[in-house]
Amino acid sequence: MVETESDEILRNADTEDVSLLVVGDPYGATTHTDIVLRARALGIPTRIVHNASIMNAVGACGLQLYNFGQTVSLVFFTDSWRPDSFYDRIRENADLGMHTLVLLDIKVKEQSEENLARGRKIYEPPRYMSIPQAVSQLVEVEDSLKAGTLAPESTLAIALSRVGGGPDERIVAGTLAELLAQPPEVYGEPLHSLIVVGKRLHHLEVEYAERFAVNRETWRDVAGRVYGCALD
Amino acid sequence: MVETESDEILRNADTEDVSLLVVGDPYGATTHTDIVLRARALGIPTRIVHNASIMNAVGACGLQLYNFGQTVSLVFFTDSWRPDSFYDRIRENADLGMHTLVLLDIKVKEQSEENLARGRKIYEPPRYMSIPQAVSQLVEVEDSLKAGTLAPESTLAIALSRVGGGPDERIVAGTLAELLAQPPEVYGEPLHSLIVVGKRLHHLEVEYAERFAVNRETWRDVAGRVYGCALD
Repeated sequence: MVETESDEILRNADTEDVSLLVVGDPYGATTHTDIVLRARALGIPTRIVHNASIMNAVGACGLQLYNFGQTVSLVFFTDSWRPDSFYDRIRENADLGMHTLVLLDIKVKEQSEENLARGRKIYEPPRYMSIPQAVSQLVEVEDSLKAGTLAPESTLAIALSRVGGGPDERIVAGTLAELLAQPPEVYGEPLHSLIVVGKRLHHLEVEYAERFAVNRETWRDVAGRVYGCALD
Repeated sequence: MVETESDEILRNADTEDVSLLVVGDPYGATTHTDIVLRARALGIPTRIVHNASIMNAVGACGLQLYNFGQTVSLVFFTDSWRPDSFYDRIRENADLGMHTLVLLDIKVKEQSEENLARGRKIYEPPRYMSIPQAVSQLVEVEDSLKAGTLAPESTLAIALSRVGGGPDERIVAGTLAELLAQPPEVYGEPLHSLIVVGKRLHHLEVEYAERFAVNRETWRDVAGRVYGCALD
C-alpha cells in the first residue's frame, strides 16, 4: 500500500530511478499527491506520466464530461456507520443540473477490528462495492431524508463496470428503481461506478445512452417527462 | 476535420478496420460522440481506447479532481461577440466552493468571413487562446458584471500549459491580477488552460500548488485570508 510504504518506495530514489505504476491517473488520488510532496521534501525529482482515469473514461456512457459536477465517494455502510453526506454533494450538483460520478468503496488489505487490536497482520478478503449495493444505499438515504434528489422511480442513473473499452465493460442505464431490480450478474465483475444523471441533460446524451437502457421506453419517458428533454 | 469529413472517415469502415487517433480522451468532445453515433447508425462496430485528457491531467497542479465542478469553455471575444455566459457557470461552481477548469478556444482551419462568403477554401493561420488573453476576458466580464466571482486581487487561479509531464509543461499559480501581470513568455507555448480555484480549498492543495506560485506570499495570504484555508 502506497500510504504505509511510501518510505520504502522512496528509500533509494535519490540515487536510482524508481517508478510507481498506478491504476488510473496518478493525480486521481490524494495518496499519490502525498507521495510526490514527500519526494519533493527529500529533494527527489519526480516526473508524472498521465493516464486515462475513471474521471474521464465515464464519458463512454455518452454523458458529456463538462456536464459533471463534483465527484462523490460512497463508502460501505456498516451497522453503526451510515454516513449520508454524499447526498448533499449529489444534491448540490443536481440543483445545478449536473451529473454526479459516484465512486464506490473498495476495501483491500483491511484488517478486522480484532486482528487490528491484537496487531495480527491478517487481512480480510478484498471487497468491492457493487452497483446493487450502491443503489440500495442511495435509496436508503433518500427514504430517510426524503429530499427527492434520488427518488427511485424518477432519477436516471448509469451503472458502469470495468470501463476501458475492453470485452468485460458493461454499461447499464435506467431509473434507480430499475437498476436495483436487475440481477447482480447484469453488472459483471468489479470495479463498478455509478452516475446520477443531472437535469441539464442534452437530447444527444439521452440518445447515446439509450442503447444501454434496461428499458428504452422508461429511459425516454423519464428523460422527457421528468428531465424535460425534447426527444424525437 | 472530424466534423466535416466523418462520411469520408466512415466510408469503408464496414469492411475494413479504420482507426481515428485523437488528442485527449475520445469522449472529451461531442464531435467524437457524434461520429460513434453515425457509425452505429450504419451498423459499424466501434471500439474506444481511452486516454489521459486535460479533464484529469489538470490534477498535475495539485488541486483534487473531485473538487472540480462543471467545465467551462471560453471563446475568443470579437468586436461584436463577447458572450459572458461562462461567468454564470463559474459562479455556480464558486458558490459551491468548487474549482472550475476553463478550456480556452482554439481556431484551426477557420475561414475569414470574406473567404467563407466567396466559397474560397483559404484558411486563416491557427490561433490558440493564451492565458493572458483568457484572464483579460475574465476580468473584463467581472468589470462589467461586478458580481465578485472573479475579483482580480482576491481570486486564485492556476494557469497550465502543455500539461502532460513533458519538459515544456508550465504551471503558474496566483491571483488573476498576478497572472495578468506576467509577461506572455512565462506561459510558454500553447495549448493553455486555466483553473479558477474554488473556496472549498484544502490546505494540502494550497501547499502542493505553492511551488508554482508567482509570489508565494500572496498565494498563501489569499488562500488563508480570502479562502479561509488554515495554513501552518
